[in-house]
Amino acid sequence: MNSRIIAIREKMKSYGIDGLIVTNQNNIRYLIDVEAEGTLLLTSKENIFITDARYIESVNNIITIEDEIIVLDIINVSESDLISFFADCEKVGIEEDNISYSKYKNFVRMFRLRDAVETNGLIEKERIIKDKYEIEKIRKACEITDSCYKHLLNYIKVGMTEKEIAFEIERFFLENGADGLAFPSIVASGENSSKPHSVPSARKIARGDSIVIDFGAKYKGYCSDMTRTIFVGEVSDEIKELYNFILNCQKRATNKMKNNADAHEITESVEKEFNARSYSLIHALGHGVGLEVHELPFLSIKRESVLKENMVVANEPGIYIPGKIGIRIEDTILINVMTSEELTKSDKNLTII
Amino acid sequence: MNSRIIAIREKMKSYGIDGLIVTNQNNIRYLIDVEAEGTLLLTSKENIFITDARYIESVNNIITIEDEIIVLDIINVSESDLISFFADCEKVGIEEDNISYSKYKNFVRMFRLRDAVETNGLIEKERIIKDKYEIEKIRKACEITDSCYKHLLNYIKVGMTEKEIAFEIERFFLENGADGLAFPSIVASGENSSKPHSVPSARKIARGDSIVIDFGAKYKGYCSDMTRTIFVGEVSDEIKELYNFILNCQKRATNKMKNNADAHEITESVEKEFNARSYSLIHALGHGVGLEVHELPFLSIKRESVLKENMVVANEPGIYIPGKIGIRIEDTILINVMTSEELTKSDKNLTII
Repeated sequence: MNSRIIAIREKMKSYGIDGLIVTNQNNIRYLIDVEAEGTLLLTSKENIFITDARYIESVNNIITIEDEIIVLDIINVSESDLISFFADCEKVGIEEDNISYSKYKNFVRMFRLRDAVETNGLIEKERIIKDKYEIEKIRKACEITDSCYKHLLNYIKVGMTEKEIAFEIERFFLENGADGLAFPSIVASGENSSKPHSVPSARKIARGDSIVIDFGAKYKGYCSDMTRTIFVGEVSDEIKELYNFILNCQKRATNKMKNNADAHEITESVEKEFNARSYSLIHALGHGVGLEVHELPFLSIKRESVLKENMVVANEPGIYIPGKIGIRIEDTILINVMTSEELTKSDKNLTII
Repeated sequence: MNSRIIAIREKMKSYGIDGLIVTNQNNIRYLIDVEAEGTLLLTSKENIFITDARYIESVNNIITIEDEIIVLDIINVSESDLISFFADCEKVGIEEDNISYSKYKNFVRMFRLRDAVETNGLIEKERIIKDKYEIEKIRKACEITDSCYKHLLNYIKVGMTEKEIAFEIERFFLENGADGLAFPSIVASGENSSKPHSVPSARKIARGDSIVIDFGAKYKGYCSDMTRTIFVGEVSDEIKELYNFILNCQKRATNKMKNNADAHEITESVEKEFNARSYSLIHALGHGVGLEVHELPFLSIKRESVLKENMVVANEPGIYIPGKIGIRIEDTILINVMTSEELTKSDKNLTII
């Protein structure tokens, strides 16, 4: 059986469940490495992936006998099959965050579950530590992101719209081996840069603008996440100073990241630096990056979390002055034993294009 | 108060509920015309949109005093505020299809709901009939789709990949005033065309191919949906005949569409025509088109539905011969009193490029 499913079956024991219904598509991808809509059932004896005609062919091309996964087309699954799957299971886990309330009720009915147990985060917590294959993919996603940024520095010109730039990011990714975008890019210029989640608009880049570019590629399912804030033509000394302040906060935070470092404490120290200048850290300092661009662990004032070797996290402090300017600097970081490594390696010294 | 909320509040009475929690983002867009993550609460006295810092500024720019909507930043909402919102409501509706099981439980707890009632489809059923502003937007989305198709007929060349063509569709939409794609485009060539939900691949267009192009633009939130099947260089008489058969089935179905027409009957008549030639209608004949590209009503053998004036529906019969060829022809159709209007107007006579 594939090693990830073996590990999850071990964890199921500690949750006191003897069956598990996996509906989160990223968890399915993690466990059986297929990109197909469907539901994965870990029953007491078997691993069953129920999908439909659209995916059967491609799934069967990927899954090997060693994986020990039975692939079924939903159209061939009878009512009595459904009842049989968990017939000898006492407690069956359901991913309550990734199933609608109506589907939950439907599953309980059609599988005749005696005891449906919430197993939120069971697989997500396993995904938090990356193995070498996963790190390779994230590294590659980060490389493509770095090349794209280099390309953008030449590409962006006064008069272009934010939308055009966002589109160029996607084009570059697709032409350079990525699956596509890890998430919808943010290209926020001028006053738009003060909105942390600005959507690319028809606003044209003008001399004197700052541009926040928050983007990432997906490579074989794995994400990268990087933000750079650049300046067009000129930048005031005041903004220059603010930029360097944020850059240094970000670097100091990265330097503290290593195995067993307290993510809550690191976030708090950035917040203190911000507060000392009467700014606030209005969003989290960071988050895990993997099959999802936002996943465990969360680096936040509101949560406790300890960094561990082979976690991959984003570090993204930002300051936003409504209607005026926003500056955010973000890298994807690999946690090592005694230190950390920036997987996105693009220059982040103040850049004027 | 805005008229759409007034109408929903009327419907709430017929559902026997005095409060409603709206979590479906398209329903929120429909009711208050903002594109922001958040939750809309219709309490016994007030309309409250809870969002976060990312969206507050843009939401406040859109909502007017006449809308009577209170916009709150989640960060400023206390536990006792949450308890107060539905304190005088006996039964509160929840959209069970659009809320995860965990969020459902959380809402029941934090709002102290005495009786949470499933109100699936309450707003969706209201969205089924479009007003003139919605039809204008869909019309515009269809116009952009038609222009794009015209462009594609010149653009597509032997040797290009399906992916390149799919990407060109997106580029064209963004450059021509659309928000973007209504859904991921299908560009399925040669043997891929026999898969109804084929994903654009690296397969290169070759002479003799059929290409199914199923695509749509989104304009100010509203979708279009059109499919054309075109041929490269040459087409056999047998396929030509099959194409014209499907085209005539599609036209006959459109001609039957008008106020009070029975969608189930129309679907059945297409199925009968298919069956007479030993083909099957393997997917629904169509679906509503609006804020979502697939919404009510569904034109299917499995469901009863009656068409009404100002519904907008897709009409998309298709025949698929596994491993060989697929042909699908689809238009977005506006239902009028005595007739119907094709909002997508691209030529659909057999086309060889």
